Amino acid sequence: MSPCFRLALTPGEPAGIGPDLCVQLAQQPQPHQLVVIGNAELLRQRADILKLGLQLRPFEADQAPRPSQAGELWVLDLPLAEACVAGQLNTANADYVLQSLRIATDGCLNGQFDALITAPVHKGVINDAGTAFSGHTEFLMERTGSEQVVMMLATEGLRVALVTTHLPLSQVPAAITPERITQVSRILDHDLRTKFGLPRPRILVCGLNPHAGEGGHLGLEEQQIIEPTLARLNAEGLNLIGPLPADTLFCEHHLADADAVLAMYHDQGLPVLKHKGFGKAVNITLGMPIIRTSVDHGTALDLTGSGQADSGSLVTAIHCAAQMVEARANSAQRHNKQP
Amino acid sequence: MSPCFRLALTPGEPAGIGPDLCVQLAQQPQPHQLVVIGNAELLRQRADILKLGLQLRPFEADQAPRPSQAGELWVLDLPLAEACVAGQLNTANADYVLQSLRIATDGCLNGQFDALITAPVHKGVINDAGTAFSGHTEFLMERTGSEQVVMMLATEGLRVALVTTHLPLSQVPAAITPERITQVSRILDHDLRTKFGLPRPRILVCGLNPHAGEGGHLGLEEQQIIEPTLARLNAEGLNLIGPLPADTLFCEHHLADADAVLAMYHDQGLPVLKHKGFGKAVNITLGMPIIRTSVDHGTALDLTGSGQADSGSLVTAIHCAAQMVEARANSAQRHNKQP
Repeated sequence: MSPCFRLALTPGEPAGIGPDLCVQLAQQPQPHQLVVIGNAELLRQRADILKLGLQLRPFEADQAPRPSQAGELWVLDLPLAEACVAGQLNTANADYVLQSLRIATDGCLNGQFDALITAPVHKGVINDAGTAFSGHTEFLMERTGSEQVVMMLATEGLRVALVTTHLPLSQVPAAITPERITQVSRILDHDLRTKFGLPRPRILVCGLNPHAGEGGHLGLEEQQIIEPTLARLNAEGLNLIGPLPADTLFCEHHLADADAVLAMYHDQGLPVLKHKGFGKAVNITLGMPIIRTSVDHGTALDLTGSGQADSGSLVTAIHCAAQMVEARANSAQRHNKQP
Repeated sequence: MSPCFRLALTPGEPAGIGPDLCVQLAQQPQPHQLVVIGNAELLRQRADILKLGLQLRPFEADQAPRPSQAGELWVLDLPLAEACVAGQLNTANADYVLQSLRIATDGCLNGQFDALITAPVHKGVINDAGTAFSGHTEFLMERTGSEQVVMMLATEGLRVALVTTHLPLSQVPAAITPERITQVSRILDHDLRTKFGLPRPRILVCGLNPHAGEGGHLGLEEQQIIEPTLARLNAEGLNLIGPLPADTLFCEHHLADADAVLAMYHDQGLPVLKHKGFGKAVNITLGMPIIRTSVDHGTALDLTGSGQADSGSLVTAIHCAAQMVEARANSAQRHNKQP
């Protein structure tokens, strides 16, 4: 039987669907202890709006983790600056959102929590409140002292990591450098080994150009940059296959024996992933000393309090985080057993 | 009951799997008259290698089209310059390939054939033989006197057309101009109406940048080029929705009520299409006075004569061409009935 883990869950923007999803999730028993780092009163109010039962239990760090019963939610209570109105952003509560992330991240770093699962924040309102904030990922990178992280999305049967993420398309080709490919590939390989229990991950790598450049007729980046970089990395012991044409690589018979796909840019890799995942995709940040997963959607302010928010992605994010915690523990054990 | 059409089928490169696929296809009865424009002896030899029965019937233009029986294939016989060895390219036979295309195309233009279905050619060997040849599409554009064509791939439940096709990624942003988007959108809209029987096609249009530029934070092409162009075209009566983020647009609930997706470039649109289509995708050339569909794969020289070639894409291409012929006839009839 799988052990019980303690998972920190940040509900994100209070006016968005994050608190709704926490309440919805609490309706089912959970094999792990989910600890929401957020405002207890807000969760209670949202449960009332949604007409769902909710027993809030104050989180106590000195107790052993225990599974969550149906209708029950563990809370590390944080004060809101002002009462929250569903669907209405309020800069006064921006620091509450950041404080939740700080506590959750630090708790993961010091071992209080086994992993972090994040519901969506609203970048705009945090910036409007006076804190420069470009996203969860950058915040967590800084807080955990990580030099470089990798964005990977996953769903049943497919993992896609990205060499470049949120760049205008015109800036992508120049960003595909040997250094960048090397860093991202090493992190991907390392984390698939240590957090996913894959002893020698087989990674399919997309070309940058259509048909992976078609022997140089459709671009030279494959020959000049990607191929030699993959060859060097494979000589180090990685198992990178490519560069391959993105349109054929994503066929099921190619994916069947791959552990992950490394796409060169956002819209090359994520349309297939989200098509295949239909609301059950999870965003995973690799390269940090903590395990972090996230939903793949936004705050959906218009759905707050409506009961229409779909918790599929959050459920997947929690399930994925728990699997990663277990794989990490097994990997550490194997490592310790080695002479 | 659907009428019987006469469909020209070019078997493409003689050393590749094209002839194999024709022979494999002939094993099943066909509701339409499939006329292979190619070498009869080659087809017979390939049938022997594959140990499949084959009755070749000489094509006679003055007879009415009639369905093909199982084991039967209509042939408009063309001579090879040299005997063909399965899997071995031979420049001597390059002109045979082009001659097949010329006859088939001209036959579609003059009404002898209702549509053209092409098996794969090998660009290299045609160029090596001394004829500049950059692909079926360019050849057909010239032969049919078409100013601009559009590449669309289709599979069950999804059609994807491309604004740009075989360009290095670094050249894509500059190619996304109002003129290009306008031309491609008009052709796509026109052909979906007249060759697919869709009275007012609803077309989802991808942005160029991730998240469709995220309000200008991830690129300005959406605001400066794509949005105003779509607005102008919609004022003309088109039904273009976008620009939308490519990674969310391809989710099933968005695709459900769309007739086609217009992607800005190759690897933004085709990975999902081919993932979803798994060997049952068809390549359609829009913007020409003739109907042309094609398989979505190459010559697969290593599979020639092995019996391993998958005819799924060719079957889909033929089925699609026949549907288009019928929709075109219905559309012309409606048009003629109007006052």
